[in-house]
Amino acid sequence: MGLWGCGVNLHIKKIYAKLAQENFDGLIVSLPANISYLTNYTSRDSYFLISKKENIYITDSRYTQEAKKHLQKIATIKKSNGSVFRIIADLCRDLGLKRLAFEERYLPFAEYKKIKEELNKRRDLIPTYGMVEELRQIKTAEELEKIKRAIQITIKAFKFIKDFISPGKKEIEVAAELERFIRYNGARKEAFDIIVASGPNSGFPHHLTSQRKIKNNEPVLVDIGVDYLGYKSDLTRVFFLGKISPTVKKIYDIVSKAQDKAISQIKPAVAINKIDTAARQYITQKGYGGFFGHNLGHGIGLEVHEEPCISRKENRKLKTGMVFTVEPGIYLPNNFGIRLEDIVLVTREKCEIISGSLNK
Amino acid sequence: MGLWGCGVNLHIKKIYAKLAQENFDGLIVSLPANISYLTNYTSRDSYFLISKKENIYITDSRYTQEAKKHLQKIATIKKSNGSVFRIIADLCRDLGLKRLAFEERYLPFAEYKKIKEELNKRRDLIPTYGMVEELRQIKTAEELEKIKRAIQITIKAFKFIKDFISPGKKEIEVAAELERFIRYNGARKEAFDIIVASGPNSGFPHHLTSQRKIKNNEPVLVDIGVDYLGYKSDLTRVFFLGKISPTVKKIYDIVSKAQDKAISQIKPAVAINKIDTAARQYITQKGYGGFFGHNLGHGIGLEVHEEPCISRKENRKLKTGMVFTVEPGIYLPNNFGIRLEDIVLVTREKCEIISGSLNK
Repeated sequence: MGLWGCGVNLHIKKIYAKLAQENFDGLIVSLPANISYLTNYTSRDSYFLISKKENIYITDSRYTQEAKKHLQKIATIKKSNGSVFRIIADLCRDLGLKRLAFEERYLPFAEYKKIKEELNKRRDLIPTYGMVEELRQIKTAEELEKIKRAIQITIKAFKFIKDFISPGKKEIEVAAELERFIRYNGARKEAFDIIVASGPNSGFPHHLTSQRKIKNNEPVLVDIGVDYLGYKSDLTRVFFLGKISPTVKKIYDIVSKAQDKAISQIKPAVAINKIDTAARQYITQKGYGGFFGHNLGHGIGLEVHEEPCISRKENRKLKTGMVFTVEPGIYLPNNFGIRLEDIVLVTREKCEIISGSLNK
Repeated sequence: MGLWGCGVNLHIKKIYAKLAQENFDGLIVSLPANISYLTNYTSRDSYFLISKKENIYITDSRYTQEAKKHLQKIATIKKSNGSVFRIIADLCRDLGLKRLAFEERYLPFAEYKKIKEELNKRRDLIPTYGMVEELRQIKTAEELEKIKRAIQITIKAFKFIKDFISPGKKEIEVAAELERFIRYNGARKEAFDIIVASGPNSGFPHHLTSQRKIKNNEPVLVDIGVDYLGYKSDLTRVFFLGKISPTVKKIYDIVSKAQDKAISQIKPAVAINKIDTAARQYITQKGYGGFFGHNLGHGIGLEVHEEPCISRKENRKLKTGMVFTVEPGIYLPNNFGIRLEDIVLVTREKCEIISGSLNK
């Protein structure tokens, strides 16, 4: 350590440039995913202080050994015995940091207050947001590799579970088999609570997987994501048991076509709201606009939900290297619901459906 | 709704009393576990505004149907289309709330700022902490039932996994089998990432379960918790394969005795730091004080880690109905580690080791 940029990685260097641009002396990073991005290490219960003179990783005794093993080249490890805020204040004094930025979306008010109190009055504590998240939107080749591996494991899990799902099995048993399968196939864990929503339960967009037994002649919605070296996947398919009613078939086709319409619009420089609108307009035309309440999709990477948010309110533009889900849905309460979710990468020309090998 | 206390549960009534005492008109609850405690419903991505005149549960379209189904007796459901903060501000105006409290530990600075901006200047936004957490420390009979069920499932899982753990199996495979088992045995999910730490990996107090293959003649530390209807368990045992070295045996006995010493001190009105000190002093006497870095334990309930924190700095007193872990550990870096974790309930006279039927 010691010198600005010495021994650090490209992500940290980019933050250095941003700090210089904004005339900040340092940044307190508190979102675990942001810390993981900057350190290339799965960070837990920690703070990361980036500054011109030194980068400091603050964590408690449970993690210091592990952190030292992984981070010695890019940061000094400090053990927090009690007040993290006192440590941060002391560091600011020792390193002569006067204009210190923090992540306003992730620092609880109480922690802000404590740091503010500990800091000398002559030092500024400045709220910022999106400094690291903006970088995270555009995936590097290494990140893409990990996301693709996460998606491959998930696709394998869908193929595996297809035969297991049958009348009489409980939703939670389907989740149990998936949880086991992904770990035997290279994932560290699930990326979020696996959703298995059978029959009327599929009418709730985010159903809590239950003890309900799956019945014949009903749709079973399965939403799975895995964590592969910190990177996440998130895909949804609907399985059908027995006979498919004409209504279910009709809704399925509308959702599927809405997804195609959205995906066909994806290319660099297109306004993000155009993507959401493409799917939403079609669903609305077909008379189901009122049953598609959520956004069309979300960025994915170190977090399951990250930027960009694919919503009708987002008028920023798509960029090459963005990775996000496209997941229109129609939910008929107390009846059933259909959602189809794939993951796309914005390429130079158009887009690649990374999960494209999974049958709809 | 309509009248103060009408149709609400005991937990909400207690908060009403606290609000009246502090002369607050309302409280914005933002910690999911606190919302779950007050509503008796597994809450996700929501805010709960408690006030004299009305309780409001604010969530997005993914959850409104489900929330209406469960919460109609105790709260009005509001769908957040965009700004939650505008909704809260509008509610404060409509309900005439002037002194509004919020949970400073759980509201990010950015959200505080937005609510503050939206609120009329004549309304006060007051930071508070622990209002709900204080109630949560003392478990009701219904809560205890759920915690006990979570513990029973966990004990069953330990008995099941004992035979599976063998040389050649990967840590992640042990976790995979546990994940599957708990769901077939009544748990909704794991309470936290299951830790399987074999050989030298057990020297890291919070090892990330890896692809490492278990070898003969080494300890395997397994730390499991499950979620049963929102309530958590958290137990640790160490399994031994092949021959146990005299050092491992010695350390194991020290940790086990330290745990007994701590537990023997537990009864109402004892200062909490006495419990931590009982274990820590013994480990220090034996020469390993420097290798037991973390606190002795933590409260457990709707969260894996909640109050009371069983630390040497906590001088508040134990109360009947508190439930917490007792988990001394000795970690010898690059060598091995031993931790034993049980859960106790403070009774009227002494304490009950709820996980006592699990062999050490």
